[in-house]
Amino acid sequence: MNQQLSCDHLWFGADIVTMQNGRYGIIEQGAIAVSGQQIIWVGPYADSAHIQARQRTDLGGGIVTPGLVDCHTHLVFGGDRSDEFEQRLNGVSYSEIAAQVGGILATVRATRSASQAELVDAARQRLQHLLAEGVTTVEIKSGYGLEVASELRMLQAIRQLAQQVPAQIQATCLAAHAVPPEYRHDPEAWVDVICDQLLPQVAAEGLADAVDAFCEHLAFSPDQVRRVFIAAKALGFALKLHAEQLSSLGGSALAAEFDALSADHVEYATESDVAAMAQHGTVAVLLPGAFYLLREKQRPPVELFRRYQVPMALASDANPGTSPALSLRLMMNMGCTLFGMTPEEALAGVTLHAARALGLAQRIGSLESGKMADFVHWPLARPAELVYWLGGQLPCRVIFRGEER
Amino acid sequence: MNQQLSCDHLWFGADIVTMQNGRYGIIEQGAIAVSGQQIIWVGPYADSAHIQARQRTDLGGGIVTPGLVDCHTHLVFGGDRSDEFEQRLNGVSYSEIAAQVGGILATVRATRSASQAELVDAARQRLQHLLAEGVTTVEIKSGYGLEVASELRMLQAIRQLAQQVPAQIQATCLAAHAVPPEYRHDPEAWVDVICDQLLPQVAAEGLADAVDAFCEHLAFSPDQVRRVFIAAKALGFALKLHAEQLSSLGGSALAAEFDALSADHVEYATESDVAAMAQHGTVAVLLPGAFYLLREKQRPPVELFRRYQVPMALASDANPGTSPALSLRLMMNMGCTLFGMTPEEALAGVTLHAARALGLAQRIGSLESGKMADFVHWPLARPAELVYWLGGQLPCRVIFRGEER
Ligand SMILES: [Zn+2]
Ligand SMILES: [Zn+2]
Repeated sequence: MNQQLSCDHLWFGADIVTMQNGRYGIIEQGAIAVSGQQIIWVGPYADSAHIQARQRTDLGGGIVTPGLVDCHTHLVFGGDRSDEFEQRLNGVSYSEIAAQVGGILATVRATRSASQAELVDAARQRLQHLLAEGVTTVEIKSGYGLEVASELRMLQAIRQLAQQVPAQIQATCLAAHAVPPEYRHDPEAWVDVICDQLLPQVAAEGLADAVDAFCEHLAFSPDQVRRVFIAAKALGFALKLHAEQLSSLGGSALAAEFDALSADHVEYATESDVAAMAQHGTVAVLLPGAFYLLREKQRPPVELFRRYQVPMALASDANPGTSPALSLRLMMNMGCTLFGMTPEEALAGVTLHAARALGLAQRIGSLESGKMADFVHWPLARPAELVYWLGGQLPCRVIFRGEER
Repeated sequence: MNQQLSCDHLWFGADIVTMQNGRYGIIEQGAIAVSGQQIIWVGPYADSAHIQARQRTDLGGGIVTPGLVDCHTHLVFGGDRSDEFEQRLNGVSYSEIAAQVGGILATVRATRSASQAELVDAARQRLQHLLAEGVTTVEIKSGYGLEVASELRMLQAIRQLAQQVPAQIQATCLAAHAVPPEYRHDPEAWVDVICDQLLPQVAAEGLADAVDAFCEHLAFSPDQVRRVFIAAKALGFALKLHAEQLSSLGGSALAAEFDALSADHVEYATESDVAAMAQHGTVAVLLPGAFYLLREKQRPPVELFRRYQVPMALASDANPGTSPALSLRLMMNMGCTLFGMTPEEALAGVTLHAARALGLAQRIGSLESGKMADFVHWPLARPAELVYWLGGQLPCRVIFRGEER
C-alpha cells in the first residue's frame, strides 16, 4: 500500500506526456502532485487516492507536456533587420548590403548604441511570443556587443530580463560570435581580450552560465575557439559551440573534446564528429529556422545522431539576421518537415534534450518526481498536434514553478 | 480648397499602407475617414482639416494595412489528420496509410459523420487563429462531403459560420475535389451528379459564391472539369480551379478560357498557361504551405507571372492533409522564402490580389475611398516586418466594416 502523501496542488483530468527518457511516456488520465515549486508525484489519477492535496484542479481533458525549453536564442539585440531582409528579397546582393554596413555589423552598431533598458524592453517583447506558447526556460546569448563594455551590458540585460519574467533564463557569453570591426585585421587580439579581460570579469560578476563561440570560416577558427574554451573552462563555465553550419571544420568534435554541453547547427557534422559527440554526451542542437531562411540544402545528419544516440534538441535561434523566429512550435514542425525528425523527437528536442543542452536535465525537461513543476496544458488530443498545426498560437495554460502563469 | 466632409470616425497617427494597385502606396502620417461601413477618405493627416469626425482615434504610431484576405481555405472539415501526419514522419508509407483509409478519405468519412453544428464549431476554432492576425475576409470550400447531402451540409455550415464571426466569409462549392469512394469506378457519374443535381440545388439555395474543382491525375481530368465549369457558369457561379499542382495538364489555361477568378497552386503552369491567365485576368493563387509540407521542388513560375502581369495571391490552403495552416502571415514568409516573392508582392497577395481572386476587388483589398472599412493597425515600423518575423502572433487591432473587432 502507498504511504499517505500531502501536496499543495494536484493537477488531473488530462493525459500526461512525461517525456521521461525522451519518449512520450504518456500516462492516460494522469495526475501531477506539486509541492512548492517541485513535482513530488506523477502517475495515473486512479492511483492517487493516497495523495492529500490542499488544492485540486481538473484540467478537463487535453494533454500536459513539460514546459518547453528554447535552448539557443539571441533574443537581446538592438534594431531589427527587416529592411535588409526586404532588400535581399528585392534582389539587392549581399555585397551591396555589406557595403551599407548591413548584416551582423548593423545589429552590432544598433546594440552598442542601445541602453540596457532598451535592450531589456525589446527582448521582453520578443520573449512574450515564446512564453505565450508554453516556453518556461530560455537561453539567451550575448554576441552583438563585440567590445567588453557592450558584451557586459548585453549579459546584464539578460540577467535583468530574468528578473522580470516568469521563466528561467540562462545567459551565455558569445563574445566570439563575429570578429569586431575594430579587430578585422587582428582577430587573435579580440580572442586575447575575450580570454584575458572579458571572461574573467563575466565570471567574477556571475553574468553567464555558459560560454559559446562561432566556429566557421567567416568567424573563428578551431584554434581560436580552443583558446576561448581553455580560458572559459578554467573559469568554470559550461561550453557550447556554433559548429558545422556552413562547412565542416571539426568544431563539433572540438566541442565534444571539451565536454561541451552542445554543438549547435551541425548541418555539416561528419560521422567522426557525431561519434565524438556521443562519447562525450554533447547534445546536437538543430536550428531549422536559419536553415529554412537561408534556403540551405545540407540537412543535419539526423540518421547518424540516431544511430550514435546523440540527443537532438531543437531551438529557435531567434536572431535578427538569419532566424527572426518567434515560435518554438514552428521549429518543431520544421525539424520534422525539413530534417525528417519524428514528432516525438521534436518534442524531446524542446523538452528533455533541450534541458540537457543547458545542463539542466536534472531539474527540468520531463515530468518526473523531483523535477521542477514546469508544465503546459494543451487542449489537444495527442502530442503530435503540437507539430501538426502550422503556425498560429495554440491556446495553452502554463504552470511555472508550481504557479499558473 | 477641399469641401467640408463629415464622417463617423477618423483614424490617424500611423502610416497607411494603402496597397492601391497592389503597391505599398504608403501615406506617412496618414488618416482614414470612415462613414458607416465604408472608407470615405484616405490621405495625409495634415490634409484632413476639412474633415469633421464624430469620433477620432490616434493610433500612436505603427502602420495600417488593409484587412488580410485568405482567398483559399478548406477550414470546414471533420476530424484532423495529426495521427497520419505522425505515421508518415515515423516512416509509414503512403500505401500503408491508404490501406487504413487514411488520406483525404479519412477526412471525408469524419466530415460525413459530423453534424452541421460540429462542423461549424470546429471550423470556428481554427478560424479564430486567422482572425487574430488581422484576417477580415476568408474563403472556405466544401469538398469533403462528396455526396449531395454532405456537400450541402458543408456549404450550410460555411453560411452559418459567416453569421457568427466578424469577418466576411465566401463559400465555394468544391464537390469535384476527389472522386467519392462510391464512384471510384465511374467518376463521370459523380460529375453528372454535380452538374445535374448538386449545383442546381446550391444555386437555388444561394449556398455558394463560386465553384471550384481539382484538375489533376488523381482527381478530375480537364474534360471533366470543363463539364463542371459549363454547368456552373450556366448557373451564374464564379469559377476557380486547383490546377497544375503536381503536373501540367493545362488546367490553368482551361480556367482562363472560362474567365475563372483564379487558378490555384500552379507550380507546373507553363508560359502558355500564364499568357492565357493574363489575357483573361485570372489570378494565380500560390499556396506555399502545401508546397512546404509536401517537400515539393517545383516552384510556381513567379517570374512569368511578373512578366505577364498576372496578379499573384497567397493563401493558407488551410486543410487537414497537406496544409494544416493557422497563419496567413507565415504563408507570406513562405511566399518570399520559398517562392522568391518580394514582401510587397506578399502583402498584395493577401490583400488586393486575394480580393481579386474572390471577385471582391471593388469592395476590399486596398485602402481607398469607396471601399469597405476593413483594416488592421500593427505596432510595426514597416510592412516588411509582417513577413520578416517568423511565426508568433503579432499583436494587432482589427477594424472590420468600420467597427473595432
Ligand atoms: Zn545562434
Ligand atoms: Zn485547396
